[in-house]
Amino acid sequence: MKLYHIWTTLENRLEDMVDIRRYLHMYPEVSYHEFETANYIANYYDQLGISYKRDFGGNGIVATVTGTLPGKTVALRADFDALPIQEETGLPYASTVAGVSHACGHDGHTAVLLTIAKTINEHREELAGTFVFIHQHAEEITPGGAKSMVEAGCLDGVDGVFGTHLWSSMPSGTVNTCPGPMMAGADRFEIKIIGAGGHGAMPHTTVDAVTLGAQIVSTLQQVVARRINPTSPVVLTVGSFHAGHAFNIIAGTAEMTGTVRTFDIDVREEVIVEMERIIKGLCDAAGATYEFVYTRGHPPVINNVELSRFIDEVVEDIPQIATPSHMAPTMVGEDFSYYLNAKPGAFFFTGAMLTEAVAYPHHHPKFNFDETAMVTAAKTLATVAIRFNDEN
Amino acid sequence: MKLYHIWTTLENRLEDMVDIRRYLHMYPEVSYHEFETANYIANYYDQLGISYKRDFGGNGIVATVTGTLPGKTVALRADFDALPIQEETGLPYASTVAGVSHACGHDGHTAVLLTIAKTINEHREELAGTFVFIHQHAEEITPGGAKSMVEAGCLDGVDGVFGTHLWSSMPSGTVNTCPGPMMAGADRFEIKIIGAGGHGAMPHTTVDAVTLGAQIVSTLQQVVARRINPTSPVVLTVGSFHAGHAFNIIAGTAEMTGTVRTFDIDVREEVIVEMERIIKGLCDAAGATYEFVYTRGHPPVINNVELSRFIDEVVEDIPQIATPSHMAPTMVGEDFSYYLNAKPGAFFFTGAMLTEAVAYPHHHPKFNFDETAMVTAAKTLATVAIRFNDEN
Amino acid sequence: MKLYHIWTTLENRLEDMVDIRRYLHMYPEVSYHEFETANYIANYYDQLGISYKRDFGGNGIVATVTGTLPGKTVALRADFDALPIQEETGLPYASTVAGVSHACGHDGHTAVLLTIAKTINEHREELAGTFVFIHQHAEEITPGGAKSMVEAGCLDGVDGVFGTHLWSSMPSGTVNTCPGPMMAGADRFEIKIIGAGGHGAMPHTTVDAVTLGAQIVSTLQQVVARRINPTSPVVLTVGSFHAGHAFNIIAGTAEMTGTVRTFDIDVREEVIVEMERIIKGLCDAAGATYEFVYTRGHPPVINNVELSRFIDEVVEDIPQIATPSHMAPTMVGEDFSYYLNAKPGAFFFTGAMLTEAVAYPHHHPKFNFDETAMVTAAKTLATVAIRFNDEN
Amino acid sequence: MKLYHIWTTLENRLEDMVDIRRYLHMYPEVSYHEFETANYIANYYDQLGISYKRDFGGNGIVATVTGTLPGKTVALRADFDALPIQEETGLPYASTVAGVSHACGHDGHTAVLLTIAKTINEHREELAGTFVFIHQHAEEITPGGAKSMVEAGCLDGVDGVFGTHLWSSMPSGTVNTCPGPMMAGADRFEIKIIGAGGHGAMPHTTVDAVTLGAQIVSTLQQVVARRINPTSPVVLTVGSFHAGHAFNIIAGTAEMTGTVRTFDIDVREEVIVEMERIIKGLCDAAGATYEFVYTRGHPPVINNVELSRFIDEVVEDIPQIATPSHMAPTMVGEDFSYYLNAKPGAFFFTGAMLTEAVAYPHHHPKFNFDETAMVTAAKTLATVAIRFNDEN
Repeated sequence: MKLYHIWTTLENRLEDMVDIRRYLHMYPEVSYHEFETANYIANYYDQLGISYKRDFGGNGIVATVTGTLPGKTVALRADFDALPIQEETGLPYASTVAGVSHACGHDGHTAVLLTIAKTINEHREELAGTFVFIHQHAEEITPGGAKSMVEAGCLDGVDGVFGTHLWSSMPSGTVNTCPGPMMAGADRFEIKIIGAGGHGAMPHTTVDAVTLGAQIVSTLQQVVARRINPTSPVVLTVGSFHAGHAFNIIAGTAEMTGTVRTFDIDVREEVIVEMERIIKGLCDAAGATYEFVYTRGHPPVINNVELSRFIDEVVEDIPQIATPSHMAPTMVGEDFSYYLNAKPGAFFFTGAMLTEAVAYPHHHPKFNFDETAMVTAAKTLATVAIRFNDEN
Repeated sequence: MKLYHIWTTLENRLEDMVDIRRYLHMYPEVSYHEFETANYIANYYDQLGISYKRDFGGNGIVATVTGTLPGKTVALRADFDALPIQEETGLPYASTVAGVSHACGHDGHTAVLLTIAKTINEHREELAGTFVFIHQHAEEITPGGAKSMVEAGCLDGVDGVFGTHLWSSMPSGTVNTCPGPMMAGADRFEIKIIGAGGHGAMPHTTVDAVTLGAQIVSTLQQVVARRINPTSPVVLTVGSFHAGHAFNIIAGTAEMTGTVRTFDIDVREEVIVEMERIIKGLCDAAGATYEFVYTRGHPPVINNVELSRFIDEVVEDIPQIATPSHMAPTMVGEDFSYYLNAKPGAFFFTGAMLTEAVAYPHHHPKFNFDETAMVTAAKTLATVAIRFNDEN
Repeated sequence: MKLYHIWTTLENRLEDMVDIRRYLHMYPEVSYHEFETANYIANYYDQLGISYKRDFGGNGIVATVTGTLPGKTVALRADFDALPIQEETGLPYASTVAGVSHACGHDGHTAVLLTIAKTINEHREELAGTFVFIHQHAEEITPGGAKSMVEAGCLDGVDGVFGTHLWSSMPSGTVNTCPGPMMAGADRFEIKIIGAGGHGAMPHTTVDAVTLGAQIVSTLQQVVARRINPTSPVVLTVGSFHAGHAFNIIAGTAEMTGTVRTFDIDVREEVIVEMERIIKGLCDAAGATYEFVYTRGHPPVINNVELSRFIDEVVEDIPQIATPSHMAPTMVGEDFSYYLNAKPGAFFFTGAMLTEAVAYPHHHPKFNFDETAMVTAAKTLATVAIRFNDEN
Repeated sequence: MKLYHIWTTLENRLEDMVDIRRYLHMYPEVSYHEFETANYIANYYDQLGISYKRDFGGNGIVATVTGTLPGKTVALRADFDALPIQEETGLPYASTVAGVSHACGHDGHTAVLLTIAKTINEHREELAGTFVFIHQHAEEITPGGAKSMVEAGCLDGVDGVFGTHLWSSMPSGTVNTCPGPMMAGADRFEIKIIGAGGHGAMPHTTVDAVTLGAQIVSTLQQVVARRINPTSPVVLTVGSFHAGHAFNIIAGTAEMTGTVRTFDIDVREEVIVEMERIIKGLCDAAGATYEFVYTRGHPPVINNVELSRFIDEVVEDIPQIATPSHMAPTMVGEDFSYYLNAKPGAFFFTGAMLTEAVAYPHHHPKFNFDETAMVTAAKTLATVAIRFNDEN
């Protein structure tokens, strides 16, 4: 049976995937600057003779393989941008770019999808329907590449769309999805506090933006803790805080950026109102003014209930992958939501926890994942695609 | 009488001082990088044929003029470094260097001292004793240039030392000193919070350095407000706070720098103990660690009581300068304290308040001062020096 | 059919229920002091000749009515204690006791259960099985009356147990339950900060418990906002804060009490660890000590899935009550959990929202509810009981 | 010489003073409730046949002794109210009144003044002028008894007024005054936060007054630390914070009281403006309202420069008392300022530090003082009075 062959092929291609992943890992590029990574992907398809379109809604690439048998059209998506994080893993294949690294595993996603494409292309005469391989840039940023790739038509004619994320806190060899809401909507905000700088020894002649900004950071946490229904999960993170250039000069301005995560569009609006209320009140209390820019980012990932159950069924048939128990939703966001808003589909996590080392969380400077999980991801994603085109 | 001539000459040289000051204002250099400014000063003395030593304890320059008559040796000091502040005055002679400006008036100090040197040199045959002109680099930084210039011997053989600061919040045409403590000791500290970074959506897997750093900023103010005797003036300013590089990544570290100002060495030590107690307690409460580096900077400026009264007497005799009422001490620091620790002397403020525009405080991006105050400073400083050599 | 008659009877007894409820409302008694309320209930049963036991596990009362037909044994429970809240409704039947009021609706629960008992007693010849009416004291406190009443045997021989809460934020005429977890576990904590008092003008000679306590209150909110998985709902409320007796004396101690709500026993333990870490760290930072007493209170209310669906079915058959959509779980706690830990059963909310006035939340000084909802509660609870004895 | 005899007499009357002091210590009465203390004082004068007026501007008593020789009129003042502090000294003569104690030493002041009056009365034939003994109630409260006693005429015809405070942090056997400003003005404030209460599990439906009040306490410290000129001493103490009655009910209101201490009437007004700005801003940020009542209390104690030097001279002549070095001003307030605003005079501290035990600060539950200091106080005050009437 064709599936068994494909599984074996993918298992045998672990080393290839490791090579691809490690190469990309050494040369990471931040969102919207993934030029060389896009070249790498294009070159890969060139060598296999698979047709693709590049500069798709940005740095995106969309490759297509059509099976000989009639069937549906399925799209698989992998993202390929890196993060502005200084890697601290000490790995031999660690990032060679200062301040940039693949601390989220998108290098692995790309290795998986390229290897699936190669394998499906080799078996295309036994396969039904059309396979669309979406290599998406700029997933880590709001607004990210998914929106523009969908707008540019990457899902035209597609019947179903699937994707996965390697997940460092789930055991390797497991696959998990959940029907309905799975990942939070992720927004971005910027706050600029405008006080009045001055001599570090004369605070009474200034409006100190560091002290005020610090208070705002602390007080914003009350939005989550006291002002939103506690059964509605919310995260409000201030990711960066920058103020002042000298130890003895009181900073007149402070700049913060951060993210808000919610599962519910009404809750998000409540968060925005409470944030601004706090910022305004505290600035008034200090005699400062502010700028508050809130960018509503990608929506929550809400899986099609039937197709997430379809993933369950598919996984049950693949040997060596644990039958999934549904996971709890996570506050982590994904712009895969844009694909799901456009077409039926589902997203799943592929467990990739390291056991021989500390399993650092995603976006941590020491993040790494179990590379054998790429086989699990590849087998699941390929099987879902093949059976979708056949059956659905 | 010689003094009258000197006063008239200095009054007539306002335009020269304005030219020097504005030139330096356009080309500011931050502490320890004042290479071109030192060249400018050296060149000025070269043109007048006044002998000087350069690279004195750093970028410092020490010029000497000896009068024909026998007398004491007096030193006058002016500082010439600028600040890492982006100027926002919109003046035609505003800084041409991005992020750097003479927001404290050291350009004016230099113009005043050069003009005094030129004038005294012209009258040297009528004058007694020796005049030492100390052009000091790096006043804005801890440790600054005063310490190294004194160590390098700039006060060798000197009997008394005087200096002034143009002061934008005192009326032009006034001069103020105070016997005993006048300006605070100024220290520098650096705090690094070491938490654990991670994904912006998963705060529970991290130790968020922004939130913790913000709390530390707020709590450190309690050192001043609750933990030190309220009749002992203290300032604790966090001048800079930098953490995080991305809106959606929780920062694992936060770095703060700041300054502590005190008039009393025991109070300073209490402040350090309380600061560390707060930093340690809050880091423990959050599961973080820290680095705390406290650099004891220049000591308080404590004027010689008799010589500060001598300044009072001198000023009373100069027409057009208001008889000084003693000022309250200020938290602003000055490394002039190193000269006073080495030799008898006194420091005074020369009022330089703008009346036709807002009088912004020193170190403010819009700081400026009344340039006519340079005449007041020059007349007072020159007369103090001449009479000191004669009388004392 | 007997159910129809019972429904009509209950509808006609709205006025009776209003009388009972308003009488109890005027004479509220706080938890463990409900002596007169217990007398009132006992007297009611005396007049009807229904047998009961009093002083059951405290001030509790358990009445029993046995139907003529064979059947199961069902227990219905209503609580009857009031809260230490000063009523501010201005109602003609407002509390006559200063500082105490029925701000949670337990007066209504009692009116409903007494009226059901009366009605079932009148129809006992047509009814199957045994009906146990549990009037529980001390629901508002940890540990409350449910634990001791269950331990005293109020559920001996009982096959299923049901209860309801009138709910001011749900529309009148609706009934809502949810299978599985429905209400949070509720714990109690006490924090005592031990600083060192002193003269209000000499903070530096003291360890100010007000300032420190205030900081602890603010920082504890980070447990919820930053330290627990955001998809695990948690509430941490500091309900009371008391420190100091005079405006000009610095308080040496501060005492706080509060509640923690969770749905998960592991999350609760994490909360306790983080709370103590914060309290200890902040006390260390201030030079204070502390006492922290955490009382694990009643567990979460976890409905039997089949019996909560049984409630759904029952409600669907009762005219004029909306078919329930399952509600989201709430952080509010209920010691009904002790009954559910002992026997199969389910709890539901009966909508009681006022429409002609502001619908204040439970425990608010202006709380009130729509009294017609007592008919809805009575019909649903009675029908659930009768059919449970018959069918299950 | 008469002074020598008086000193000896006062030395011999230490035991009497201890008896009086300890008796009053056991029966303390809080401000405006000093009825029995006033009776005790009146009774003392009755037994000596010294005339006095009672109920003077409240519970005050004013006794008069006139010397045979002609001279000026001097007034000496002692206060006699106690504090609402639970004594924790464990002394055999500890307070017998729960929650009330002489934790500031006014019992000692009264013992000193009564003993001076007795002694001067015995020597009145050798003495000049008139001696007015002012026993003042209600010193610990704003507005206190000084204001009303002055308004009632206790200083009519008086030429100079003196007083002392036993001071537990200065060595016994020393006397200290300072010319000009010596003690801070002391104001009282009350803040009421009006949020919206509710169920402890539903913070999002409330405006939590505990959380908001806590934030206001923390932020008010920035008035002192960041908003007032650091060389102007300010204390802002929140002495009491009371909110909430139950652990599981979110408090709708919080009440705070506190004191502000300043030496300068303009600084005080700045403090008030900044306090209200902070309270208003933080309430706005939380959706709460507030009441802020600020009561300007007694002004700073500003000694007459000549009369404080007169105290220095007097002390120099008394054996066994250390020649005073001028003390630094203290933030502690005293309504003795009202006497100084009405008549020339001066206040001084009499060192009373315990050496065999911990010297707890004034207003501490374990406060006590060295009783032998009463001799020092009595000798100094009596001598100042006698010589004032003679010489001045």
